Amino acid sequence: MLTLYSFGPGANSLKPMLALYEKGLAFTPHFLNPAVFEHHEGWFKKINPRGQVPALDHDGKIITESTVICEYLEDVFPDVKPLRPKDPYLIAQMRMWTKWVDEYFCWCVSTIGWERAIGPMARAISEEEFEEKMKHIPIPEQVTKWRNARNGFPKEILEEEMRKVRISIARLEARLAESPWLAGPDYTLADICNFAIANGMERGFSDTVNDRDTPHLMDWIRRINDRPAAKEMFAKAKRENLAPRPASATA
Amino acid sequence: MLTLYSFGPGANSLKPMLALYEKGLAFTPHFLNPAVFEHHEGWFKKINPRGQVPALDHDGKIITESTVICEYLEDVFPDVKPLRPKDPYLIAQMRMWTKWVDEYFCWCVSTIGWERAIGPMARAISEEEFEEKMKHIPIPEQVTKWRNARNGFPKEILEEEMRKVRISIARLEARLAESPWLAGPDYTLADICNFAIANGMERGFSDTVNDRDTPHLMDWIRRINDRPAAKEMFAKAKRENLAPRPASATA
Repeated sequence: MLTLYSFGPGANSLKPMLALYEKGLAFTPHFLNPAVFEHHEGWFKKINPRGQVPALDHDGKIITESTVICEYLEDVFPDVKPLRPKDPYLIAQMRMWTKWVDEYFCWCVSTIGWERAIGPMARAISEEEFEEKMKHIPIPEQVTKWRNARNGFPKEILEEEMRKVRISIARLEARLAESPWLAGPDYTLADICNFAIANGMERGFSDTVNDRDTPHLMDWIRRINDRPAAKEMFAKAKRENLAPRPASATA
Repeated sequence: MLTLYSFGPGANSLKPMLALYEKGLAFTPHFLNPAVFEHHEGWFKKINPRGQVPALDHDGKIITESTVICEYLEDVFPDVKPLRPKDPYLIAQMRMWTKWVDEYFCWCVSTIGWERAIGPMARAISEEEFEEKMKHIPIPEQVTKWRNARNGFPKEILEEEMRKVRISIARLEARLAESPWLAGPDYTLADICNFAIANGMERGFSDTVNDRDTPHLMDWIRRINDRPAAKEMFAKAKRENLAPRPASATA
C-alpha cells in the first residue's frame, strides 16, 4: 500500500508523484492544503515531524524528502519502468542533476515563488492568526521564510535569487542543447526532479524561459508534458480541482 | 584504475577517501593545494570544469560531487565491504542523512571554517594576486565566498551560521542517543559523510561539541577515528605531511 502526501503536481510534490505515474504504481494520493497550513497540523507532524510534504507511506513505513522518495521507488520497484539508469556512470550523472536541483535551482525559484504566491496568502490572514500558525512550524528556517513572504523579501535577496535563476536556466539550456535528457540518452529521475521546478517557468519567468532564448529547455518541458504519465497526472489533479502549485510551499 | 583528486582527509574530500579506505580499494591519491588555488588551474578544470575537489577518475571516467562519488563506489563495487544498506528503507534513511549534511550541516560549518582558516590565507596574498586568482574561479558563489573570507564575513552571517551549527549538533546528538549509527544498526555512508564535517569540531567548536553536552556525538567521532580504515587514512596523510583541513575550501 502506497500513500503519497503532497500539495499536488507542482514543485517538490511533483517529483515522487510523476515517478509513481511513470512507473504505473497504484497509490492513494492525499492532498494537503498549504493555505491553511495543513502540513503543520499535529496529525501530519506525526507522519513527518518536520512538517513537510511530500511524504510517502509504504506499508506503514514513512519516507520523506522528495528526491529520496524517488530513489526509494527505484530501490523497491527496480524493474517496473525504471527511471534510474543501470550503468553506474550514468547513475552518477543522474544524481549530479538531482543534487543540483535540490541544492541550487529549487531554492532560487522557490524564493521568487514565495514572494509572488505565498506573500499574498500570508498577508491575507490576521497578524494574530499568522503568529498562531508560526508556532506550529517545526523548522526555524521555514518560519523565517514565512515572515519574509509576509513582509516582502528584501530587494537584494530577490535580485540575487533572480541571478541564480538565470544561471540555472542557462545551465539547463546548455545541457539540453547537447543531450536529449539531463543524465544522457534516457529519461530519468534527473529530468523528473528538474521538471518539477522548471515546468511553468515559461509562464512565470517568460523573460528567461522562452522559445527564442531557451529552445532546448522549452522543447524538453513540452516533451515531458506530452508523456502519457504527465498528462494523466495533470488531468487527474484538474478533475480534483487542484491547480498545480508553484515551486513554493515545499522546501 | 582509480585516482582521487582531493585536498586530503578533511571536509568533502574525506568522504570518498574514507569510503575507498573502508572498502579496501587500491587508488592513487592526488592531493591539490588550495593555498595556491591549484583546483582552479587549467589542468584541473579540464578534469572538473567547476574547479572543485573531490573528483574521481575511474578508468578515464570522471565522477564529481563527494556524495555522488561515494554512491558511485557502492554501485561499481557493491559487494566489497558495502557501506550502503541492502534494505530500501534503510537506504532512504542513509540518503536523508547524506542529503542533510550536503544541504545544511556542511554549509554552516564551512562558513565558519572559511572565516577562520581561509580568511588569513586570502589576506596573506597581495590584492593584485588575489584578483588574478579570482578570475580563474568558475563558480560565481565561490568568488563571493573568497571575497567574504578576505574581508571578513559580516557579523550577522557568522551569528546565523553559528545558530545553524548548534541546531546541527543537537540533531546529530539526538539521533546518536537513539541509534549507534546515523542510518540505523550499521555503519554507512551516512556516518562517513557526516563525520567528514563533524570530525575535529571537538577542537574547533569545543563550546558546542564536548563530552558534557554531546556525549553520544563524541563517542561516535571516536568510534569512527578508531576504525582501521580511518587510522590508516590519517596516518598516511601525516606521513605525506598533509594536515587534515577544515570544512572549508571545498563546496
